[in-house]
Amino acid sequence: MAIQTKMRKDLILLKDLSTEEINHLLDRGDFWADNPNSTISSAPRTVANPVIVNLFFEPSTRTRFSFELAAKKLGYHVLNFDARNSSTTKGETLYDTLRTFEAMGVNTAIIRTQEEGILQEIAPQVEVSLINAGAGANEHPTQGLLDLLTIRQEFGHLEGLKVAIIGDVKHSRVANSNIVALSKFGAAISLAGPEQWMPTEIDSNVQISSVDDALNDADVVMMLRVQSERHALTNTIDNYLESYGLNKTRFAKLKDNTIVMHPAPFNRGIEIDGDLIERSNSRIYRQVANGVAIRMAVLELCNAG
Amino acid sequence: MAIQTKMRKDLILLKDLSTEEINHLLDRGDFWADNPNSTISSAPRTVANPVIVNLFFEPSTRTRFSFELAAKKLGYHVLNFDARNSSTTKGETLYDTLRTFEAMGVNTAIIRTQEEGILQEIAPQVEVSLINAGAGANEHPTQGLLDLLTIRQEFGHLEGLKVAIIGDVKHSRVANSNIVALSKFGAAISLAGPEQWMPTEIDSNVQISSVDDALNDADVVMMLRVQSERHALTNTIDNYLESYGLNKTRFAKLKDNTIVMHPAPFNRGIEIDGDLIERSNSRIYRQVANGVAIRMAVLELCNAG
Amino acid sequence: MAIQTKMRKDLILLKDLSTEEINHLLDRGDFWADNPNSTISSAPRTVANPVIVNLFFEPSTRTRFSFELAAKKLGYHVLNFDARNSSTTKGETLYDTLRTFEAMGVNTAIIRTQEEGILQEIAPQVEVSLINAGAGANEHPTQGLLDLLTIRQEFGHLEGLKVAIIGDVKHSRVANSNIVALSKFGAAISLAGPEQWMPTEIDSNVQISSVDDALNDADVVMMLRVQSERHALTNTIDNYLESYGLNKTRFAKLKDNTIVMHPAPFNRGIEIDGDLIERSNSRIYRQVANGVAIRMAVLELCNAG
Repeated sequence: MAIQTKMRKDLILLKDLSTEEINHLLDRGDFWADNPNSTISSAPRTVANPVIVNLFFEPSTRTRFSFELAAKKLGYHVLNFDARNSSTTKGETLYDTLRTFEAMGVNTAIIRTQEEGILQEIAPQVEVSLINAGAGANEHPTQGLLDLLTIRQEFGHLEGLKVAIIGDVKHSRVANSNIVALSKFGAAISLAGPEQWMPTEIDSNVQISSVDDALNDADVVMMLRVQSERHALTNTIDNYLESYGLNKTRFAKLKDNTIVMHPAPFNRGIEIDGDLIERSNSRIYRQVANGVAIRMAVLELCNAG
Repeated sequence: MAIQTKMRKDLILLKDLSTEEINHLLDRGDFWADNPNSTISSAPRTVANPVIVNLFFEPSTRTRFSFELAAKKLGYHVLNFDARNSSTTKGETLYDTLRTFEAMGVNTAIIRTQEEGILQEIAPQVEVSLINAGAGANEHPTQGLLDLLTIRQEFGHLEGLKVAIIGDVKHSRVANSNIVALSKFGAAISLAGPEQWMPTEIDSNVQISSVDDALNDADVVMMLRVQSERHALTNTIDNYLESYGLNKTRFAKLKDNTIVMHPAPFNRGIEIDGDLIERSNSRIYRQVANGVAIRMAVLELCNAG
Repeated sequence: MAIQTKMRKDLILLKDLSTEEINHLLDRGDFWADNPNSTISSAPRTVANPVIVNLFFEPSTRTRFSFELAAKKLGYHVLNFDARNSSTTKGETLYDTLRTFEAMGVNTAIIRTQEEGILQEIAPQVEVSLINAGAGANEHPTQGLLDLLTIRQEFGHLEGLKVAIIGDVKHSRVANSNIVALSKFGAAISLAGPEQWMPTEIDSNVQISSVDDALNDADVVMMLRVQSERHALTNTIDNYLESYGLNKTRFAKLKDNTIVMHPAPFNRGIEIDGDLIERSNSRIYRQVANGVAIRMAVLELCNAG
């Protein structure tokens, strides 16, 4: 069947997806965004009621709930495994844990881990589908996809758009996933933020600039969360909003149709002035809604056949 | 449609409900109490499978499970957010958390919090329905409703009944909700317990008396839990059962058709002699069963349209 | 109806089950093992969508998920109560907790506890079905059943098989359940391991021997997990694999059709050489799969009528 050519076992890195595959996911994401309460899933499934396990080795609330809700809306069964609190996993490798869930009948494992590279290593050794829900500072592919979806909904295309990504680009899997995905579609990316947070290697479609230069002419502004739990940055944070954040002065200079994005949770008054969160050109809550929609699309893809 | 005139967005305080609305809820609660395994929900829904989130900032087992079970029996999707353990909510306001769940597609948030007044403040700012599952020492409206239901099942009416509420009335949201609800229906309320636990302001249908006077002629006896986690009361507790609790001597003096209630969990041998929990005129487990039934009714109301 | 004669209220100890009842469970387990995604449950139910609560007073990941998945595949509602973290249960007895869940409408409680004997004591006092998910060092009946199922799938029968159980037999509820169940069906059992881990009383079909003697001629080898959290055994563990574990030398001497079993989670390199986990005669992951299947059978039995 034709649909089987679209089926993927795993979704680990956006860079492994063709633009055709990404467009297919965005189309399905659009369907679910427009029909969040539809009970009709177009894709044939390998089993009637697939089972997913949320396997989070790092704390997460919204990503886990987003996957859980996406799965439940599709009629899947959901197991939530808070791996941080489990005594059982002590000394057990991720491979052994996954083989056990696979034997139980779990079809898809949603995994967040600090260990970069481990999912790529294990994926070929197991039958269960692996979906990367955030791995180290590396990639967070469903975040990249939901951001693409949000931008495409706005502009109808991705090619040629000017996207500013502001903040801790170096340690942000959100930024990294967006750079990978946007680059595939020919967007021009400007990065800005404290110098020590800028990446050391960049591609030709990416440039590092000042915050104000990055915002100038930007079609899309992506503000990154200051991850204060990762940095000892008290001094920087004191002036962060004025130095690097999206304050009202910078906001007033944006083009009329520029959209403002943030992966959330946001720190009001640090990387973004709290009053801007719900301005008419903010797409921050649209991103949250698209997160559920795109995860429905990803789950469909990994369980179609 | 007529049903829409009954729909409420939120259930925050019982005092905001008309007696007509309360009677409607009690009628539906009676239906679910009589038909706990019915799969037919009479009320049209805004969406086929509403989503609720249990958002508990204070520990609770039975109230959370009661809501979870009520929702599942109605075919709703349930997300359980143990807000105490979440690192994500650190620094995030309740408003921001609710807006995020709303964007995800959550229809109803069941909230327990220590902050009194916050739900009333946020409710008009969000589209998601808010149901108060206990706020500070203030109100616990579904507990009040399930207690009304239990009493109405017994006596067929609420007007004119004599209700004794014994214990830490001042700090009990259970007591407060019952006083509000019973007063609407014209019950006469006697409060008793240690002096420092009596409220400072009472209405004309309420009186403060000794435990024995309160029990005399009572149709309904509500024993409150001694919240030892809130009080340093070791000395008082040593003699609590004899001084203020429902012991066998006091129990023997009750009228034949008096019913005994307790919101649970109970402390056997402190506010109530353990042997009385399952006496034929105890309605303690009936209250638990009614809790699921009334929460089904409340969820229906907030998701009807 | 005939089916009602098969219905059990509780499953607490395997020794209370007749071989006929066990065979019935194994037959249904076989059905679910062969048809893990069937949505047809043959057994009439007391209610359309039974409710189970997982009530675990000791940590467990795989047993809890196995029951949860079994229940969800049958279309049951599942409440997960992590009793270790609950403040509500402080001071509340298991009896009171169960009566509360019963009043809520829970049909079956899956319980893991350290208190041996408590389930037998409470079962006659409550209407909710009790399923023992591990009680102290005593019994773990669903583990025993899934092991029987795994062996029967292999050999077609249980009578006359030679089964070696190696490790901490004395403190293992897995071993104890298997000894009880296998003995009912006429298997010959050899126990081996450190002397202080051997039971003090054994039946006539059981013998204690050296590891190598136990493995010689064994049809089935069950390796037990070294429960290092229960023992201060550092010295013993250093040489455990060579002294008592299943290493490659011992493995090479097994008969061709001998199967290797382990209740998991396993300690690679302690009680079993990690390379042997996925050898062709290992049934370790088959046991995990059978765990879900047999628990579906047990849930059906306790909710049929």
